[in-house]
Formats: sequence, structure tokens, C-alpha cells
Amino acid sequence: MHPSPHFASDNTAGIHPEVLAAIAAANTVHAVAYGSDVWTATAIDRFHEHFGPEAEVFFVFGGTGANVLGLQLLARPHEAIICADSAHIHADECGAPERFIGCKLLAVPSRDGKLRPTDIASQLKGIGNEHHVQPRVVSVTQATEYGTVYRPDELGALAEVARRHGLRLHMDGARLANAAASLELPLRAITAEVGVDVLTFGGTKNGLLGAEAVVVFDPALARDFRYQRKQAMQLPSKMRFLGAQFAALLGDDLWRRNAENANRMARLLADLAGQVPGVTITQPVEANAVFATVPRDRMAALLERFFFYVWDEPRTEVRWMASFDTTEEDVRAFARHLQAVLA
Amino acid sequence: MHPSPHFASDNTAGIHPEVLAAIAAANTVHAVAYGSDVWTATAIDRFHEHFGPEAEVFFVFGGTGANVLGLQLLARPHEAIICADSAHIHADECGAPERFIGCKLLAVPSRDGKLRPTDIASQLKGIGNEHHVQPRVVSVTQATEYGTVYRPDELGALAEVARRHGLRLHMDGARLANAAASLELPLRAITAEVGVDVLTFGGTKNGLLGAEAVVVFDPALARDFRYQRKQAMQLPSKMRFLGAQFAALLGDDLWRRNAENANRMARLLADLAGQVPGVTITQPVEANAVFATVPRDRMAALLERFFFYVWDEPRTEVRWMASFDTTEEDVRAFARHLQAVLA
Amino acid sequence: MHPSPHFASDNTAGIHPEVLAAIAAANTVHAVAYGSDVWTATAIDRFHEHFGPEAEVFFVFGGTGANVLGLQLLARPHEAIICADSAHIHADECGAPERFIGCKLLAVPSRDGKLRPTDIASQLKGIGNEHHVQPRVVSVTQATEYGTVYRPDELGALAEVARRHGLRLHMDGARLANAAASLELPLRAITAEVGVDVLTFGGTKNGLLGAEAVVVFDPALARDFRYQRKQAMQLPSKMRFLGAQFAALLGDDLWRRNAENANRMARLLADLAGQVPGVTITQPVEANAVFATVPRDRMAALLERFFFYVWDEPRTEVRWMASFDTTEEDVRAFARHLQAVLA
Amino acid sequence: MHPSPHFASDNTAGIHPEVLAAIAAANTVHAVAYGSDVWTATAIDRFHEHFGPEAEVFFVFGGTGANVLGLQLLARPHEAIICADSAHIHADECGAPERFIGCKLLAVPSRDGKLRPTDIASQLKGIGNEHHVQPRVVSVTQATEYGTVYRPDELGALAEVARRHGLRLHMDGARLANAAASLELPLRAITAEVGVDVLTFGGTKNGLLGAEAVVVFDPALARDFRYQRKQAMQLPSKMRFLGAQFAALLGDDLWRRNAENANRMARLLADLAGQVPGVTITQPVEANAVFATVPRDRMAALLERFFFYVWDEPRTEVRWMASFDTTEEDVRAFARHLQAVLA
Repeated sequence: MHPSPHFASDNTAGIHPEVLAAIAAANTVHAVAYGSDVWTATAIDRFHEHFGPEAEVFFVFGGTGANVLGLQLLARPHEAIICADSAHIHADECGAPERFIGCKLLAVPSRDGKLRPTDIASQLKGIGNEHHVQPRVVSVTQATEYGTVYRPDELGALAEVARRHGLRLHMDGARLANAAASLELPLRAITAEVGVDVLTFGGTKNGLLGAEAVVVFDPALARDFRYQRKQAMQLPSKMRFLGAQFAALLGDDLWRRNAENANRMARLLADLAGQVPGVTITQPVEANAVFATVPRDRMAALLERFFFYVWDEPRTEVRWMASFDTTEEDVRAFARHLQAVLA
Repeated sequence: MHPSPHFASDNTAGIHPEVLAAIAAANTVHAVAYGSDVWTATAIDRFHEHFGPEAEVFFVFGGTGANVLGLQLLARPHEAIICADSAHIHADECGAPERFIGCKLLAVPSRDGKLRPTDIASQLKGIGNEHHVQPRVVSVTQATEYGTVYRPDELGALAEVARRHGLRLHMDGARLANAAASLELPLRAITAEVGVDVLTFGGTKNGLLGAEAVVVFDPALARDFRYQRKQAMQLPSKMRFLGAQFAALLGDDLWRRNAENANRMARLLADLAGQVPGVTITQPVEANAVFATVPRDRMAALLERFFFYVWDEPRTEVRWMASFDTTEEDVRAFARHLQAVLA
Repeated sequence: MHPSPHFASDNTAGIHPEVLAAIAAANTVHAVAYGSDVWTATAIDRFHEHFGPEAEVFFVFGGTGANVLGLQLLARPHEAIICADSAHIHADECGAPERFIGCKLLAVPSRDGKLRPTDIASQLKGIGNEHHVQPRVVSVTQATEYGTVYRPDELGALAEVARRHGLRLHMDGARLANAAASLELPLRAITAEVGVDVLTFGGTKNGLLGAEAVVVFDPALARDFRYQRKQAMQLPSKMRFLGAQFAALLGDDLWRRNAENANRMARLLADLAGQVPGVTITQPVEANAVFATVPRDRMAALLERFFFYVWDEPRTEVRWMASFDTTEEDVRAFARHLQAVLA
Repeated sequence: MHPSPHFASDNTAGIHPEVLAAIAAANTVHAVAYGSDVWTATAIDRFHEHFGPEAEVFFVFGGTGANVLGLQLLARPHEAIICADSAHIHADECGAPERFIGCKLLAVPSRDGKLRPTDIASQLKGIGNEHHVQPRVVSVTQATEYGTVYRPDELGALAEVARRHGLRLHMDGARLANAAASLELPLRAITAEVGVDVLTFGGTKNGLLGAEAVVVFDPALARDFRYQRKQAMQLPSKMRFLGAQFAALLGDDLWRRNAENANRMARLLADLAGQVPGVTITQPVEANAVFATVPRDRMAALLERFFFYVWDEPRTEVRWMASFDTTEEDVRAFARHLQAVLA
């Protein structure tokens, strides 16, 4: 029997049934390609309801594409992007920002995945020196790669420091829904309203087949986005099926229901796993990720039935993720497995 | 009433029902992301049946991404790619090859979209001169952007000239299925067997929701493709749904049935339209495209009920495309419209 | 005996004695690197005298670097540069613009190296279409690669068409001095005053050891040039020696004296060579280049004593260049050689 | 009176008289451009004497260009370069490697500018993971940016670790002459003989007007260098004057005489300055740099007569550099100034 990858990532889950139904419902007549269709228009309307009518919204294939396209609106090649060292753009995109934008990333160590105002300040010394890249963007991940969540005041403080030094604020919101659900806030309250300039809004990790959005809060920035998206190989021809997915996700609060379930299941898992001797939960469980250390000598046995990622090998810190479709029974089965192996 | 875009392109069609069913069938358990799943493995097996067991196969989001990733295996930044001036990589990808690879395209005028051996020879004069980009790749489109189809001997002749000068052969097969159906040949007979080094195999225009494949016939070239795909923002996380699409397309000859229907409907359209006074068919109808000139003063009226693209404005040459789901009734309705407007 | 390369190019000449003396004179005390020195300041003052006090002036190592840095001020990666097919940026820089800027060049055939307003118009059809690169820059070479010279009204007409369509005008002035000398006009009259936005001003071909300048007529464009120059690997550390060269060239009209001599010697060569049976002068001799066809069967013999470039092999069209230090005796010796070989 | 920049950097010095004489001596007849001249050939012969006859040698304008061109021979865009965080390629080239190569730099903190084998090991965890850039190059600076010098055994150990993991070794030898002089070893003993694959050999900081060399010890790597140099905007047209400079530097041991003087003067400065109360020398003085901390409240006064760089503002650590032409009297004058200000 293969080990179950259920807790390996939130992208091991499939498509939420309402989303798949929306795809099927859009599969009727011929429709103009590349986004001039009613499903895409409907989805953009939904984004406007959540993020405000000024926001420019563009759909793309994947999260790396969304991040890179968003960042290239803000940084030119001789400029630099400040981010946490765990940021997806730095650690998990195989150098896509460097290759496509040509710029440097200034990665700041962060134990919980969050940037703080002093981290920004520490990276500004080269400003005005022609030998140095010029810091121009602060990029935060919400929720972070460690499953922690920025509060609005924390984001506001980062935005304020950024603005004071002429920097723009980018948010990788691959798991923005989980953060908003965790904070019990609308999406707008942790993006547009705290000073985010450009947002990656993730759908794939929250129940879509595959679709991400770039949301640009300053329309002037977005003027040439259509060309840039095409040049970045991120323009889907049958765009209506991305529109249909997002319309389903953002209508009727599916995004929040999915995220709440994933968050709740992560908390349950942390509660149960935290009671197992030998397991130490290492990060606050604020979204749908659980980080924990486990005994090194039990790792192989643990991985026999459940596949998951070892995040920090030297510390034997592992990551477990809950998804939109994780059930209480899934969690309890995993906890029983932990208990049995570590007993 | 909106004009119908049915004949505007083969990407105005939706998803073939068998493909959508395959997506739904894959939407069961959790599966490891990024391609280590059974649906992807099955799809790759299908490719091996068609293209030979040596071929390395990679799935990506879109056609531009597939072309650029394929080309970067063959050309470095100081090298150049010879193609027809109508080639999608030159005319319709918003400079993606230049931006991502950094190389120059040498576009040769071609009335029917085909390259000929003398076109290659005409671009070789800078070889060995450090001030000039160095030609390294010949890129052909099969079927061409003009709906014409290279015969195997034509491709073989190009491959032979290329090899003699140290160049590699790339094929943009966004409509390879249409070409193979037209020639009544297996896919392999117009790719691996005639000397193609790297192939883009298109699925989206032939009934998929969205998936393209890069097929590399020389495995040594593909060694680092996985990293390059990720860096090029073309790695789908829920890869299983691309695998499921391709498994459906390449199993049970769906690819050929779809392509044959599109080709047949294009020929029917050419036959019927060609009888309408004022319409002149301008290209051989060998795949699923029909090119024709129409009277300039009737253009607006023609576009009222059917939306399609004017390909060459000065000549009022237009393009009509048939799709996998075009019916004889669709074609006859369009022909009646032509007749009525041009009468 | 090696063949003399005297007429092969204007960069086979060495350093004008006044320029070498200026370098030696600057070789005294220690000076701050990278341009904060008095020699650089003096040279910039000289540029301001010629081009107006608003012009931003930057020195770089070479002509390709100057062109690419100038162009990247005007075009982003998804935009395109319209130029003649003989333009140095297209034909002789080994793809440097594509690699560094990531953009496409739209090369228009031109028999005499000049662009005309209709050439610009012919390249504008893709504007607003997301699949196409967006034309943003017109680049002209003055004097052209064919030794022809744009008159001010010709440049003004190009600038006017460009402006009407939202394009900017770049000039590759590797031989601007030759053009100004030919027209008996100040440098400003064929650059700033006719609507050039960014200029490459060449020094190396006109008697310098090696130095080129980028002159930016709209200061807002130049704001980040210092960083871009460094990132483009074009920032000389011992900048004072570039400043000293330019100060010498632009002071006391050395630039004009050098260019006038080269132009005069080219005209003399054309006069003498044109009288040799078998030689046909193929371009107007307006600067320091002479283009001519010669009998194919005498080519090898011609090249035995003088090395020069065959420009167009099928037509056996060759290029002969005169330099700042070419003497009447050099020209007469070359003409006698032509006469002897072709007799 | 302006403060003297004498100790600010070794590029505030001018041209060594023997080098300037060599330039003048090469300024005779017309010579073929781009490197097919006798001066360039002679210089390459000199390199072969020092580095072995197999080495491929190319001259370029500047140090950043040399580093980037050397690195692009070794790393493709999805690969990564491991270096110390003080490395010029990371800290002082305004992101040129990222922009031109498209790759990521993995910068390791190092207090003395040296990499150690464990630093390499710490950066290898992402190997084989498609989401991560793939480490491919180790880049060391000799002498380091902190004026420390790698011994042959230290370099050999790095080369050995690199080789074991399939990585190549690049050396930024902007001050290689200073390192070789310090170790009293031939140039080859700390490059080719310890496993360096590609070397930047610096000339500008050691008495040239401006010229750097890329030395490639594996000829297969260098096959397309000529095109890459041109595309990187680093091909000088009047190459003979770079050749003449290098021929002068590497003939008759001028490189060693210059470096020895600079090193000796740095040691003298460290000795004298180290005796001044309030000054602490912070790095071993092994080449021509002196690092020291000075009292914060005397900094402004110190900078009044001598301009130099504050290297680490929080620690008030400064850098003083000696040059090929620094005299004992220069050093003593500077030391007297220190004494006077800090008294």
C-alpha cells in the first residue's frame, strides 16, 4: 500500500465538487478565448466585490507565474525584493524571479516566516550606491510558509516602513483565504486596506483545479499587464474555465468555507499530535499548517503510511498540511498513526 | 445577439466530454502534486506508445510555455532560431522566446507558412562571425499557421539541411494531430522518424481544457528540464489533471477522431464557401483552417453574426477555423450566412 | 607582407595624438573612481556645450553597451524596437539587445540603411494586441551603416511619426561626427533639435582609444541610469581616462577635424575608385564609407595587399572606410592598387 | 582642499608609466580590430607562460564583465552560484550576474571573506529538488574583499568538495597578483594547479588603464566565448590597446613588482596605524587592504583630509587600500594624520 499524501500539502487535494460543476457548466457553447467571455467577466466582478471596484484582476495558470508577474510590475532589474528566507519566491520557485525579472532577492532570516519592520530597515544601506541593487519591493506571504498569519496592524506597519523608503508592498496570498478565515476578516482588510500594492490570490491550494489571480490595487501599474502575462507564458487560451473556477470559489463564500475547514483540521491535528509524547509543535497554528519536531529514529516508520515533508532535516522538523476536504476522521487516523509509531 | 465565435479559432471550443469525464474520474483521493501520480504516469505511457519509449515527455500549462521550454533546450542566448515569419513563436507569443531565452529569431517570409531548405541556407552567412548571432535551431509549425501540412519528405529535407550545418529541429505541433490526421500517418512518422529533436505537442486546441506537452527525442537534452520547467513558471501543481486529459486524448484515438472531424469540417467549409461568389480560397485546406479573401465592403456585415479574424487587412484575407466539435450543420449555417451577405 | 587593414574599418586606426596626450595628462594624482573626477566633469561640460545643458551624459566602455543601455531606457521587454535591417543593433551586436533587454527588434529592409516614415507605419499593426510585442522605439543610425546621412528634415519626419504613435526615437551615433561634418551642422541640429530622445555618441571610431557616451535628452528617463550602467557591466572604474578622451575630442573641434578628414578621404577614394573600370560605387558617399561592387574574379588579388570586408557576397559589394588619420597618399596608394589589379 | 582619495581604493591610482608607454608604442599603424593583432597575440602568449599553454584567454573591458562572462560559462539560469556574502559578484555588481545569467547567488556569511568547505556543504540540500535552484558553481575571490589570501591548500580543499558534488570553481582574481605576491607563488600555483576552472584576472587595480582577462582552464568551456563576449557588450574594438597593457603587465614581472609594493605599503600602514590609540586592525593584512575600526566621533575629522570607505557602519570599520604607486611617504603622511586626529 502506498503511503497517503493527504497531509503532505494542500495541493494533494483535488477539485472541490462545486468548482468541478462550474467547469462543466461553462463547457457549453463556443466562447472567445483569452478572457473575453462571460465566466471571466463574472469572476472579475466577484473579485471587485471582495477587493474593491478599482482593483485590476488577471488570471494566470500558476502561483509562481502570479508571483513573478506581480513582482515585475514593481521591480526593475537593477532593483531588489526584500523577503523572508522561507518565502516561496526565494526558496521554492527555482529562481523564476531572477530569471524573468533579472533582479536580486534580499532574503532575511525569519524563524516564523514573517518579516518585521526592522528586517526592512536592515536591507536599505545600499540605497543610492550605484554598485548595489536598489531595494524597491517588500514581499510578504500571507499566511506564511510556516502557517503563521500577519495581523492587519503588522501588515500596516510593514506598509508604512516600505512607503517611507519608496518601496512597494507585494503579497504572496497563495493561502490568503486561510489567513482571512483565521483572522475572521474580509479579504480586503488584509490586502487593499493595509497598503498592499499587488497581490497574488491563490485558488489552487483552496479547491480549484488550477488558477491563480494577480490583483493590482494601483490601476496605473497594470496598464501593460496583458502583454506581460502573454510574454510570461501565463495567458490561458480557454480562460473561461479559470473564470468559472474563480466565480465558484468567490461566490457563496466557498473560499471561506474551504479555508475554515482546512484551518480547523490543522488545529485539531496540532491538538491531537501535541499530546503524543515525542511530538513538539514548533509554530503557532494560525492557518492550515502544522510544524512539529518528531524523533529522528521514528521518521522512517512515520513515513510508511503517510507521506509528508521534512522541512528542516537537522531539527527533524516536519510539516503537515490540512486541506479543504480534510475530515475529522482523516485527522484522527493520522493522529492514531503518530501515537502508534511513537509509542 | 452576440456574433458566434465558432469559426474564430479552434480554442473557442470547450472540453471534449471524454476529457471532462477523465478529469472528474481523477478527482478522487489525494495525490502527490507535480507529477508523481498515476494519471501522469499513464499519460506518459501513452506518449511512449505514440512517440517511442525513448522520448522524454513533460506536461506544461500552455503552448507558449511549451515552445519556449522546448527551444531553450536547443538554443543558448547567443544563438538564433530560424522560423517562418508567420510562426507562432515569432508572431504571436509577445516576444516570450526573446525574453526567456534571450536569443534572436530569424524570421523568413513564407506565403504558406512553410520553411524550405533554401530558407535555412539564406540565414547561415553569419556563422563563425562573433558579431552575429549563431543559427542553431530550425523551428517548423505542423500544421502551419496557414493550415498547410508538411509532408514527411519535406520535413526530412529540412532536418537534413539542419543537421549538415549543426542545427537542431524544433516542431511547434500545436496542431500536430490535425497534420497527422490529414496525412493519415501516425504521430511518430512526422516527428521522431523525420528527425525532429524537440516537439511541442498541443492538446488544448484539440479538445482539452488546457494542457500541452514537450516531447524530447534526445534524452540527454532533457536532463535538466524539470528545473527549467519550474523556473519557466510552467509546473502545474495538480498535475494529475493534465495527465488525465492527455491519457484520455491519446487513448482510444480520441486525438485522431477530434482532428479528423475538424479537418473534414474545414474542407466542407472551403467547398461551400468557395462556391460563394466573391470568396476566394487562398491556401490549400490541408488541416482545420480555411483562408479566404472576401469583399472588403461586406466585411462588417459578415462579422455581424460570426466573429472571425482578419488575417491580412490589406488583402482582406480572413481565417476560419473548424474544431473537434464543429458539426456539418454549423458549417452549413455559416455558408448560408456567407451566401446571404455576399449575394 | 600582411595586407594593410587601413580601409577595412575606421576602428583599425589608433588613437589621435591629442587624445593620447590628454590621457597622459590625466595620469597624475590619485582620483576618485567611477566618474567623480574633474576630467569627467570637464567632458560632461563639453557635451552640454554641444547638446544643451539639460542633456544627461554618461560614459561607457563600448558602442554595443551604449546602444543597449540607451535602448533599455525606452523599451521594456514586451515592447519592440523598429530599425533598418542593416542597423548595428540588429546585425552586428550578437543579439545583445534581445539578451539584455529581452525585447524584440523589428528589422525593416532598407537598401541605403535609412528608415522612412512608411517603414514605421508598416510595423504598427500589432498595437493593442496582447499576442504581439508592442512597438515603442524607432532606432536610426547616423551616419548609417551604408555611409549615407539623414538630413534634419528626414529625422524630423521620423520623429513626428514616432511621436504620433507614442514611440520614442533612439539614434545610434557611432559616426554622428561624420554626419554632422558632412551636413556642416552642429551636433545638436541633428539630435536634440530634431526630436531624438536618446543618443549613442561614438568616440572610438573617431580617434579615441575607447569611449562612448549615452546622451539622454529627457532627464526623467535617466534617473536610474547609474545603476543600469553598472548592472550592464559598462561602468569603467578609472573613468577619468574616458573623461579625458572626450574632453579632448569635443574641445577645440577635434571631433569635427577628424570627421571631416575621414569624409574627405572617402570622397576622394570614391572619385578615384569610381574611375577604375570594373568598379561601381553603389551608395552616395556622404560620410566616411565607400560601397562598391568589384569583379568577383579579382577579389582575391585585391585582398592580397589591402584587407577589407565583403559586405554583400552575392553582389560582390565591398566596403571601404576612411579614418581620421587617412592621408591623401594612403588613398592614392589604394586606388593605384585597384587600378593595377583590375587592369 | 579636497581630501586625498589615495587610500580609498586601488583604482584611484592611475596608469603605470610602463603601461602607458606600451599603449603609446602600440599606437602606430592601422591594426585589425577585435583582437587579431600582434599586441593581443603577444599578451596571450604571456598568459600562456603564466597559466599554461592550454588556457584560453580573453580580454574584456571591466571586472564585472569578466566575472559575469566567466560565470555564465559554468552556470545556467536554473543553477546557482555559492559565494561569500562579501563577494564582489554579490555585493558590488548591482545584480549583473542575476540579470545577465538569470541565476541565483547563494551568499554565505563570512567574516574574513573566505569560503570554507562546510559553507559549500551547507548550500547543497536542494540538489535534485525541482523547486530549488541547483548549486553548480563555487566562486571565491583571491585576494578576498577583506584583504585576506587563500593558501593553495585551502583552495584545493574547496575544489575537492566542489568536484565531489559536481560543482565548478570560479575565481574572481581582481587582485590575484596581490595574492600571488603575498604567497610568493607563481600565478599558476593558486589557479590552474589547485583546480580553478575559470578565472577573472584583474589588471585595472594593478596599474592598467583598464583591462581584465577571463582565463578558461578547460578549453571545451570556452568554445563560444567570443559570441558571448560580444553579446555581453564586452568586446573592445581597439583590442590592441588592451593587449599592449597586458603584455606590459605580464612581461618583465611588472605585475609582481606592482603587487608587492601595494602589499608592502598595506603592511606598513597596518603597522603604523595599529600603533595609534583608538585604531584596531580587524583583519589579517595579507594583500593590499587594511581593515580597522576607528572611534566613531573622530570619523568626520579623519575624512577631512583623506577620503576612504566606511565598510561596516555599525562597527565603524573602515577600509584602507594601498596601490602600485603608493610610497612610504604617502603611508607615513596618512599615519601622521591618523595620529593627529585621534590624539
